[in-house]
Amino acid sequence: MIKITLPDGTIKEYKKGSTPMDVAKSISEGFARNVISAKFNDKTVETSTPLNEDGSLVLYTFNDVEGKKTFWHSSAHVLAQAITSLYPNVKLTIGPAIENGFYYDVDLGENVISDKDFKTIEQKMLEFARGKHEFKMREVSKEDALNLYKSQNNQYKVELIENLTDGEITFCDHSDFTDLCRGGHIPNTGIIKAVKIMSVAGAYWRGDEKNNQLTRVYGISFPKQKMLTEYLALLEEAKKRDHRKLGKELELFTFSAKVGQGLPLWLPKGAALRERLENFLKKAQKKAGYEMVITPHIGQKELYVTSGHYAKYGEDSFQPIHTPKEGEEFLLKPMNCPHHCEIYNHKPYSYKELPKRFAEFGTVYRYEQSGELHGLTRVRGFTQDDAHIFCTPEQLNEEFKSVIDLVLYVFKSLSFENFTTQVSLRDKENSDKYIGSDENWQKAENAILNAVKEKGLDYIVEYGEAAFYGPKLDFMVKDALGRSWQLGTIQVDYNLPERFDLTYKGADNKLHRPVMIHRAPFGSMERFIAVLLEHTAGKFPLWLTPEQVIILPISDKYQKYAEKVLHLLENSEIRALIDDRNEKTGRKIRDAELNKIPFMLIIGEKEEENGTVSVRKQSEGDKGTITTNEFISLLNKEINSTLEQF
Amino acid sequence: MIKITLPDGTIKEYKKGSTPMDVAKSISEGFARNVISAKFNDKTVETSTPLNEDGSLVLYTFNDVEGKKTFWHSSAHVLAQAITSLYPNVKLTIGPAIENGFYYDVDLGENVISDKDFKTIEQKMLEFARGKHEFKMREVSKEDALNLYKSQNNQYKVELIENLTDGEITFCDHSDFTDLCRGGHIPNTGIIKAVKIMSVAGAYWRGDEKNNQLTRVYGISFPKQKMLTEYLALLEEAKKRDHRKLGKELELFTFSAKVGQGLPLWLPKGAALRERLENFLKKAQKKAGYEMVITPHIGQKELYVTSGHYAKYGEDSFQPIHTPKEGEEFLLKPMNCPHHCEIYNHKPYSYKELPKRFAEFGTVYRYEQSGELHGLTRVRGFTQDDAHIFCTPEQLNEEFKSVIDLVLYVFKSLSFENFTTQVSLRDKENSDKYIGSDENWQKAENAILNAVKEKGLDYIVEYGEAAFYGPKLDFMVKDALGRSWQLGTIQVDYNLPERFDLTYKGADNKLHRPVMIHRAPFGSMERFIAVLLEHTAGKFPLWLTPEQVIILPISDKYQKYAEKVLHLLENSEIRALIDDRNEKTGRKIRDAELNKIPFMLIIGEKEEENGTVSVRKQSEGDKGTITTNEFISLLNKEINSTLEQF
Repeated sequence: MIKITLPDGTIKEYKKGSTPMDVAKSISEGFARNVISAKFNDKTVETSTPLNEDGSLVLYTFNDVEGKKTFWHSSAHVLAQAITSLYPNVKLTIGPAIENGFYYDVDLGENVISDKDFKTIEQKMLEFARGKHEFKMREVSKEDALNLYKSQNNQYKVELIENLTDGEITFCDHSDFTDLCRGGHIPNTGIIKAVKIMSVAGAYWRGDEKNNQLTRVYGISFPKQKMLTEYLALLEEAKKRDHRKLGKELELFTFSAKVGQGLPLWLPKGAALRERLENFLKKAQKKAGYEMVITPHIGQKELYVTSGHYAKYGEDSFQPIHTPKEGEEFLLKPMNCPHHCEIYNHKPYSYKELPKRFAEFGTVYRYEQSGELHGLTRVRGFTQDDAHIFCTPEQLNEEFKSVIDLVLYVFKSLSFENFTTQVSLRDKENSDKYIGSDENWQKAENAILNAVKEKGLDYIVEYGEAAFYGPKLDFMVKDALGRSWQLGTIQVDYNLPERFDLTYKGADNKLHRPVMIHRAPFGSMERFIAVLLEHTAGKFPLWLTPEQVIILPISDKYQKYAEKVLHLLENSEIRALIDDRNEKTGRKIRDAELNKIPFMLIIGEKEEENGTVSVRKQSEGDKGTITTNEFISLLNKEINSTLEQF
Repeated sequence: MIKITLPDGTIKEYKKGSTPMDVAKSISEGFARNVISAKFNDKTVETSTPLNEDGSLVLYTFNDVEGKKTFWHSSAHVLAQAITSLYPNVKLTIGPAIENGFYYDVDLGENVISDKDFKTIEQKMLEFARGKHEFKMREVSKEDALNLYKSQNNQYKVELIENLTDGEITFCDHSDFTDLCRGGHIPNTGIIKAVKIMSVAGAYWRGDEKNNQLTRVYGISFPKQKMLTEYLALLEEAKKRDHRKLGKELELFTFSAKVGQGLPLWLPKGAALRERLENFLKKAQKKAGYEMVITPHIGQKELYVTSGHYAKYGEDSFQPIHTPKEGEEFLLKPMNCPHHCEIYNHKPYSYKELPKRFAEFGTVYRYEQSGELHGLTRVRGFTQDDAHIFCTPEQLNEEFKSVIDLVLYVFKSLSFENFTTQVSLRDKENSDKYIGSDENWQKAENAILNAVKEKGLDYIVEYGEAAFYGPKLDFMVKDALGRSWQLGTIQVDYNLPERFDLTYKGADNKLHRPVMIHRAPFGSMERFIAVLLEHTAGKFPLWLTPEQVIILPISDKYQKYAEKVLHLLENSEIRALIDDRNEKTGRKIRDAELNKIPFMLIIGEKEEENGTVSVRKQSEGDKGTITTNEFISLLNKEINSTLEQF
């Protein structure tokens, strides 16, 4: 008998040689039907692998990330089988699972796979899947392995096998198909109920453009047809909500090849939107005792040597800026903290003056490879809603909790109701990745853990995810499509105060080190606005949206009255405009709907006579006729209901 | 007889050999007494130089820049004479006039001149001055000139003479003193009535640190003792108002050696002040139809090659930023215009959509040698209150005049009542300094000249002062000490629209080029705030000042009432604070006066009972006791009176 420990801590005894599937069935037959993969003693195993010793076992279903990975890796085998069956001269290379689905890189020789072949491949895959073939691992000698692929003239697999220097070599068989494979599969192909070939692309063997070009076939698969249908609908919706598309349509931002990739240019409507967001946060920050500062976008190399950023990122970043004569070296600032430390350092403080909370909408620049850039979510220059709190160790807990309150206020005001948090701690086994003493790290990590517990936040702990100078609390919001985005962050730092020799005079009249909190509720203005665009599909909260009201006179006879209404709205600080184009009212309404303007005021003879407006609400339709002043009250009430005071 | 043309155009006949002083006396004896130098046919001459041909003559007094220059250059001769008399082994080098006074660089050998020697030198100078010695020029052969200085072992003058390759060599004699000199002196030393040695400093011969170090003796002199007294008082006042000193005292900004010289860090009070100034301008700009945009602080080198900035400034600027892998080159942006051109270029425009007015508080970086840096007036990074107007040629005149209105509004709101303007045109004889066609320059220059005439501005024209891409209108304000500062600027540009291929579709359905106006009413936030600090001695206009009101409870018994008053003020958006230190009220008043807080509210038992406050105005004293609400009305009235609507 062997002892198997399950994730909930229970320990059960099984016959030696029992498989993970046996264990699953012993728990419940229903559960076992959904189990598709397993980890035994932290190593991926098949559900059919006999367990011969004591250990801990985790069983995964498709709902787990690990389960999906196994499902998609197994599906890649079936894809390879289908392609081999359709293109017998194909040479297979590698086929991993990815975040959404899987791919296989294949050398098709003279053949080409295009959109019109996708259906055929999918049908072939489903045909093989329906065979309910079991995946079976077997160990082979290096010689046998090489012989198989040499006989197929497959230089890719030969190269892979030749590079395998340690450990056993294994093949995976299912039906009549064999592939070189490290293992980790679903019980049998029959679980794959729905497949979709997503796209094909060129890819170089081993990612090196000097090598042969291969065809990368992307696919995705699910255990239920309904799941595929939902996934494709989500993709369709995500495409509609793509912030790059919406940003262009709503004229919020643009990029210029001349200015440079990854460097957004904010157009008037986008800049105004950003300013409203910034003012919203400024107001809350002022109440919370923050003070704004302004610092330059460059700093001497020495500044970043002091902070430790240079040693960490120097070579992979934008390179130093030299002066023409004096041999100075500056760097584009990748972070605002060193500058804020120098602001703190400009005068001595007594403990009575702490905390100091310095805030700045600070634009920072970080090099990203051009292939990594993506709209506003991966850029080379972005503006952090940054602040650094310098406090005594005794104040840390209260300060940290106040910052949590501020972050929660921001999320609530911007309709991100759904979020989780992650406490990112250091990887203790790789301590050379981090700067600062063990004692300081311990204190900082405890401060965060205490605060999240006291605030009752729903959190997970991840080791190895801390910043190099301190642990952090990250906020991940779920958007309307259920996708997770990392936004706000709060970090505790005992290290920079030492590196910058920051001090304050304590009640004991001696000098002490303050503790630093780094925090950014939005994270970056660029990323936040991108996520907000995709979350709201461009329908921003009323208080934030570029144009709140559009006035639609039914003919140019009512232009004067339209202007009078506009004037009244503007006096009440409502953002409004008139559509005075020579178009039919139906067309004007359609365009206003497309532009996602929340309210339309249609005016004609009757409205002018009675001093009223006919109100339409975007995507909701007619709301009746009221006086302009009534409309203003209505609008202000709605704004106040979506934007509480901090 | 010869014909002499005077500056007013009158032509008079004089005997051949008459001197400029003879001409002066023929105009008026009183005028002649003040004449100290002259230019004949654009060449500096002595007032005693015989005129032997027809020509135009300008006569200068101490009130003219040219007159001061001659006066101070002549004084340098007297300084050299005094030093030679006090330190017989001295070797003289050069002694020019400068903006305020003159200096002489001397090799003192073993001797040293320090503060305590200044008096002696001044007395010796005045002794020589009282001799009323005439300055007399004489031509000498190179050989004679070399012999004189070789006999004195003066290698400096020998080197100077050896380098004189063309033209005659002249000496100037006065009393028993002789110096190598090109000429241009006052009639005699007796006009020098007041002298002051200001300082000594080290200076290398020919500015090269490989050469001998010399002693530079700085002095200033005047034709009246009263003028010296006034000058020294002005210096004293300027020192008190030095923005670097005030900026530190008022905690507005600081510099950090680690961040880098010339890169200001704005402290909370300074950042808030800047924000108020920016909001003030934003509000006026919004009314004037501007739209805010936001652009990055770097751009690809190609962007500046297109704009022409790279060819013009590339090598003397901050050097390019390279990316680690992709071989890209970026530059810190020295100007916002190329970015704004790319914003304009993001979509096509119809003539009906123009003008587009893009505004940005854009931080730019320009390299300055460290020796040139000075507080906030000469920095390496600064924020322009920049905007670019893109309009049709037909709109140019109206747009330019609107910009003038905006600049005048800014100056008026910030109590710069006294200003002049300068139209800076190109130097037609050095046309290779400029980019763009002659036709475009002509149009741009006319546009500015027409606008200033129509607006009835008091202006002067300076040739050769235009920007390299277009002519400009500069606004020079006079501060409270009578010093002139260049602040706002408006420029017309036909060239960048061509370089960036900017277009709009005209009424004729064809593509046309827009014209661009560059403008910055403040110029830069840094420089403007520096000038405003020195102009107001830190007593900012009430609407702008960091703290408008300080509440001074006479003891801690009234802390609660103080907080109640504070709350009332803050609700009315008045910036106030409480001085709750355990200090006597007299001390609190003194500190508030020093901190230039406009209003002090003293509260004690009587005030708490009656719900009143005792008002003191900074530098004016007691203003009586009124209710808090009455005080709020009073303050708001005063704010509104200093800040009109645009």
